[in-house]
Amino acid sequence: MTDAHVISFECDATDGAARTGRVRTARGSFATPCFMPVGTRASVRTLTSADLEDLGAEIILGNTYHLMLRPGADLIAEFGGIGGFADWHGHVLTDSGGFQIFSLEPKVTDEGARFRSTYDGSYHHLSPEGSVEVQQKLGSDIQMVLDVCPPLPSPLSVVRAAVDRSAQWAARAKLADAPARSMGSTQAQFGIVQGGIDTALRAESAHRTVEIDFDGYGIGGLSVGESREEMLPALAATTEVLPTDQPRYLMGVGDPVSIVEAVALGVDMFDCVLPTRLARHGTILTSQGRMNLRNARFAADHEPLEPGCGCSTCARWSRAYLRHLLSVSEPTAARLTTIHNVHWLLRLMEQARAAIGAGTYDQFRRSVGAVWS
Amino acid sequence: MTDAHVISFECDATDGAARTGRVRTARGSFATPCFMPVGTRASVRTLTSADLEDLGAEIILGNTYHLMLRPGADLIAEFGGIGGFADWHGHVLTDSGGFQIFSLEPKVTDEGARFRSTYDGSYHHLSPEGSVEVQQKLGSDIQMVLDVCPPLPSPLSVVRAAVDRSAQWAARAKLADAPARSMGSTQAQFGIVQGGIDTALRAESAHRTVEIDFDGYGIGGLSVGESREEMLPALAATTEVLPTDQPRYLMGVGDPVSIVEAVALGVDMFDCVLPTRLARHGTILTSQGRMNLRNARFAADHEPLEPGCGCSTCARWSRAYLRHLLSVSEPTAARLTTIHNVHWLLRLMEQARAAIGAGTYDQFRRSVGAVWS
Repeated sequence: MTDAHVISFECDATDGAARTGRVRTARGSFATPCFMPVGTRASVRTLTSADLEDLGAEIILGNTYHLMLRPGADLIAEFGGIGGFADWHGHVLTDSGGFQIFSLEPKVTDEGARFRSTYDGSYHHLSPEGSVEVQQKLGSDIQMVLDVCPPLPSPLSVVRAAVDRSAQWAARAKLADAPARSMGSTQAQFGIVQGGIDTALRAESAHRTVEIDFDGYGIGGLSVGESREEMLPALAATTEVLPTDQPRYLMGVGDPVSIVEAVALGVDMFDCVLPTRLARHGTILTSQGRMNLRNARFAADHEPLEPGCGCSTCARWSRAYLRHLLSVSEPTAARLTTIHNVHWLLRLMEQARAAIGAGTYDQFRRSVGAVWS
Repeated sequence: MTDAHVISFECDATDGAARTGRVRTARGSFATPCFMPVGTRASVRTLTSADLEDLGAEIILGNTYHLMLRPGADLIAEFGGIGGFADWHGHVLTDSGGFQIFSLEPKVTDEGARFRSTYDGSYHHLSPEGSVEVQQKLGSDIQMVLDVCPPLPSPLSVVRAAVDRSAQWAARAKLADAPARSMGSTQAQFGIVQGGIDTALRAESAHRTVEIDFDGYGIGGLSVGESREEMLPALAATTEVLPTDQPRYLMGVGDPVSIVEAVALGVDMFDCVLPTRLARHGTILTSQGRMNLRNARFAADHEPLEPGCGCSTCARWSRAYLRHLLSVSEPTAARLTTIHNVHWLLRLMEQARAAIGAGTYDQFRRSVGAVWS
């Protein structure tokens, strides 16, 4: 089945298990390791597609749960997908909707999940097949299969049941996408590995997911309550099993230390609301660590958020001005701090790629850890 | 005293009482008739200075009341004024703070007004001299004198008392600014005409204000509760008295019909929160009138907000996308609609200038009235 894959991972360099290269798609390609800003409702909160172009983002994430409810997948399909709707010409990955839905305490059966909309309380149903259909309409470059993601800690029986049901749902999702694929669809489909922090279950889930054969592999169910010390062995047990010639995506993880550690284990793709959410609350990412812009010591500070930063916010505005805008709740504050934080994290990924290319990744990883741990 | 003026009005063309030209200042010049977007807290709500440059705005307004309380005039002075603080290189006009303060039911004496901050309830005092001092620190290109602006309708005795006190305060404001002027300050100072809708009082107030001799003249106390039919004669009675070689600024008026009517009476400058506030609520300015973007009929509309519009929002995004962002409260919606509305109003002023130059202003005025009345 391998030659049926619609995307490929082209490795330029490795350093230990870390690797850098490009994911080739029907649309073009994007460099990895990469961070995908989260465009929940067909917009990365406070930013436009023009802002994302200026930031050099190559791929963003869209949330199936939100978009299927507002404005609805059919409407987005009519505009040529999320890209056409938002006039975004880069790549889009959509999640399956499962992660949001499982946080709503849905009624789950083998068939799928029944849940209530957070917008108007109406009832909806999402099955593996339904999620495929919605994501086809959303027109993303990469769709994710519907999985079961238990919070941690959970009893082992719950984690095992999630692995089993996720494997069954993954097979159904692949089947559901087959007609489109046979009609020439170039939308990639990623399976998702579960298994909590149990390394044996992780390896089993990885084997079972790879057996179904996807274009790439998501690693789900991590950073959902466990410590980083618990997460990393589970992640390692997963990446060891995954094919080296396909992309690997650690879902929902975005703190700098976890990113650099996961890259060291061979992860290629990340997404997280962390940099954008922190920005809106005035928490700034810098090479010295987090900076709380609300702190009174910045009230008269002429420096940019981070001296030497190449983002468009740091090019023009002082900490004092941005702190003022934040203090009086001017919406411009959130946009300008978001631009900085997204730029900062995209730049971190660029540095990771360069370090892998130069064979100095371990040094880079430790330098990030020293600041952020 | 005339040769002591720090700004001048250079008339390029007239059409009836309407006139077009440039106001020359120490900073440069700006074309008139002009609309000044309102940058209440050193930011035009949802926009950056970069956005305002892209929009071609030449002058914005800053609010003394808000800025003296947050972040404080001394801090802004330390950054070289509002322009340095916001990295805005165009012109800035500051109001006196009076308009906001009078809406807080202050205790007013001959000395000035005592009021409570809307930010923290603390007590503050603003006098004509204090307002000059604050505006000097804010570093605007044009400062306004503190005046008394009664709402309409008000008893004639109240309007007369406002004219008298405004004249006394104007003289004190001019005196208060004299030391800076003799030290070479190039910050212009505008007096303000009051008088409600009483044409005799308007003429009297205009004469008394002109007698004090300012760099330009604000026309205050209009669009504060009266009808347009009551406003325009009072405005005409004012502009007839004002010197033709100095700029005239109708304060707080921004609806398209009032603007084109006021321009016909010889007004050069306008400001209003209308286009930005409407935008945030989804009301779009178009050549066909107001459009409520929240209306369900735009849900699947592929058209831009206004076909043919040259703004950066209309260049890329559909009504459907913008309506979606508005419906799910994405902050990007307000920014993109604000860009359109400000562009639209700046373009209306451009059209007014062109019509005066072409001698077709009356036709232009009637065409705007036909859509917007």
